[in-house]
Amino acid sequence: MPASQRISAVEVTPVAFRDLPLLNSVGVHEPFAIRAIVEVRTDEGLTGLGETYGDSLHLDRLRRAAELVAGADVWDLNGLARRVRTSLEGDTGSGGHGMAGMVTSSSTADTVLSPFEVACLDIQGKATGLPVSSLLGGAVRDRVEYSAYLFYKWAGHPGAEPDAWGAALDPDGIVTQAKRMIADFGFSAIKLKGGVFEPDAEIAAVEALAEAFPGHPLRLDPNGAWTPRTSIRVGRRLDGILEYLEDPTSGIAGMAEVARAVPMPLATNMCVVGFADLEPGIRQDAVRVVLSDHHFWGGLHRSRLLAGICETFGMSLSMHSNSHLGVSLAAMTHLAAATPDLTYACDTHWPWKDPEEDVVRPGVLTFAEGAVAVPTTPGLGVELDRDKLGALHEQYLRSGIRRRDDTGYMKRIDPGYELVKPRW
Amino acid sequence: MPASQRISAVEVTPVAFRDLPLLNSVGVHEPFAIRAIVEVRTDEGLTGLGETYGDSLHLDRLRRAAELVAGADVWDLNGLARRVRTSLEGDTGSGGHGMAGMVTSSSTADTVLSPFEVACLDIQGKATGLPVSSLLGGAVRDRVEYSAYLFYKWAGHPGAEPDAWGAALDPDGIVTQAKRMIADFGFSAIKLKGGVFEPDAEIAAVEALAEAFPGHPLRLDPNGAWTPRTSIRVGRRLDGILEYLEDPTSGIAGMAEVARAVPMPLATNMCVVGFADLEPGIRQDAVRVVLSDHHFWGGLHRSRLLAGICETFGMSLSMHSNSHLGVSLAAMTHLAAATPDLTYACDTHWPWKDPEEDVVRPGVLTFAEGAVAVPTTPGLGVELDRDKLGALHEQYLRSGIRRRDDTGYMKRIDPGYELVKPRW
Ligand SMILES: [Mg+2]
Ligand SMILES: [Mg+2]
Repeated sequence: MPASQRISAVEVTPVAFRDLPLLNSVGVHEPFAIRAIVEVRTDEGLTGLGETYGDSLHLDRLRRAAELVAGADVWDLNGLARRVRTSLEGDTGSGGHGMAGMVTSSSTADTVLSPFEVACLDIQGKATGLPVSSLLGGAVRDRVEYSAYLFYKWAGHPGAEPDAWGAALDPDGIVTQAKRMIADFGFSAIKLKGGVFEPDAEIAAVEALAEAFPGHPLRLDPNGAWTPRTSIRVGRRLDGILEYLEDPTSGIAGMAEVARAVPMPLATNMCVVGFADLEPGIRQDAVRVVLSDHHFWGGLHRSRLLAGICETFGMSLSMHSNSHLGVSLAAMTHLAAATPDLTYACDTHWPWKDPEEDVVRPGVLTFAEGAVAVPTTPGLGVELDRDKLGALHEQYLRSGIRRRDDTGYMKRIDPGYELVKPRW
Repeated sequence: MPASQRISAVEVTPVAFRDLPLLNSVGVHEPFAIRAIVEVRTDEGLTGLGETYGDSLHLDRLRRAAELVAGADVWDLNGLARRVRTSLEGDTGSGGHGMAGMVTSSSTADTVLSPFEVACLDIQGKATGLPVSSLLGGAVRDRVEYSAYLFYKWAGHPGAEPDAWGAALDPDGIVTQAKRMIADFGFSAIKLKGGVFEPDAEIAAVEALAEAFPGHPLRLDPNGAWTPRTSIRVGRRLDGILEYLEDPTSGIAGMAEVARAVPMPLATNMCVVGFADLEPGIRQDAVRVVLSDHHFWGGLHRSRLLAGICETFGMSLSMHSNSHLGVSLAAMTHLAAATPDLTYACDTHWPWKDPEEDVVRPGVLTFAEGAVAVPTTPGLGVELDRDKLGALHEQYLRSGIRRRDDTGYMKRIDPGYELVKPRW
């Protein structure tokens, strides 16, 4: 089979999978998370997979791009990016990035490009017999470590039975959640999604984690819920406890102000989220850790570019996650495996997902001691389960959810809820 | 044939080819330029080619690296770089970069890595049927423009007959040289290597070129021969005439001082020559054009990283050249083809080389209208002529030249010559 293949057809399928009432600084996760699965087919009969956000505005963009990428060679990633940019000409809409309003400045072109690029790499791998990690420069590790990603949460969605995880609304609840997640998955690093309760309550939760899990790297991410002043107070209180403090406040200038005053590195997936943010972020010394995310950094090769920029400018790399399925986990794992400097354990929402609900066949991506073994089969190494794709698409249609809206869902539950940033 | 192949053997062959008495700020080119041809063989019987400097210190490093890269998969470029770094452990020598002392801060690890990486890409291409440009993300152009690279020169090497180009020691000589080179090759952009005569003489030569070639982009490169004060004076004099001024003075701080005071962009292949130079160069706004060169930026993928960094930080890209053979020209052409932002015509010393003297079979790399068509055959697209390799190796042995030494040669001719920087 020739390595060079041309895209003959693209299918974009929105799917929904059950999600739990995880709290954050802008509201709470709805009962379903939505994603889009992108299948790219070639004239030689191969299929590659990509996964991205499922918001309807984004779906529209994916479908417009899909029309233009037909005919492109799967190795011509420059041409792919050019076609995607062309498909977005005149598109001045914002949002649609599935980030619940937490990030607005990431590049739409990179976000739309991402699933097509990943699918092309999947095809490149299948055509050559190489795993995607090899196409990215070679795996430097055979397993990729992920972190325990803790959330404050309600016992269940309002009106529904409590879910299997139960409530976590105070330090005890968070420690209990961490114990279960670490028992199940073996994670070492622990991240708490904050910005939900007032800072002292979240400090107490982090301190309880530090006591319960001595030696485990800890992170706190309030998603910009704090003023710089509050951020500095919290940062100083948690000296020696956090490996990094993630997005305590919004914006490059505010982060730079905090960075100058707290002892630990600041990390971000909110103020440096696209290539255009790197120059101001670096010139202002706003962050020392960038949480890469191939979904909005333009795919795997452009995430490697981000990694190279971070290495060049002395910044570290970690990895951000939204609620995702197995195609994304495979792509994240290959990328992390081929990125020497990605030495922090990556984020993943994987534990919050029902293992029964996925679009890929089970068995490839399994966690042991907090890590996923890097697939060594051709391409991403995952296979689409078409029945499950159909079922999750049906679920998407039934769910009625057409864009991620943590704030709207929270307001329907608590009409008095107001989105305020910074809140403290 | 499987795409995945392991390196089974490496051969490093120093070669010498005739060179002309081209003058620069540190002396004059010797009668022979030296290079090293790196042949990488795999367990599947493929061979990939790389070309690099021929200085003996560099040859020693190449041979030490060659021992360690045996066994590496040709797709595992991360592993290749690691093996090269390991081979250099404890190596604190400087120099050996074939740059005649004009550049000292480029990364030895990247310089040693480069020919192995290029050879691996050549093999990747042969194993998959893809041209190297496709492996780098796809050609965005099917021909790569080069510039006319003019030099002040003597009529011939001392003691030898005048060469076919004759002398060029004043504006008339330079214009005559340009006319012939442009007639032969069709170049549009014109670069004059300066730093040889006092600045006003070189200004006059540039002005003569501007008059003789209206509309042709012009560049002047005195290789750091001037003080910042002189650089500013020349830069202001040549306002509206130069597309960029290349390395008027040495060092990032001096370049930044000049950049603030002259109207045209400053370009460099002397003060930002490795990834470690990018942060200070950018923070000080020293240059607006980086002349990439895969020979010291760590190969083709790392040159793409440099390109991504330049794009991210709003800098432009051009391409630097030393005296080189066809393997390098092929690699330069693939890289330029796959680098969207490389919109300046690239430098090449090609016109100064005897067409009969090369290690690759003729016919692939030909100039038309100042450009080389990007090879579309697998790998680099060039084939080694083993007889010619042997002949140029014999010439290397006979030449006695073991390191590039423009200054030493000049001093043998003119015992009163002193290397002074800045000279004006
Ligand atoms: Mg975050
Ligand atoms: Mg130069």
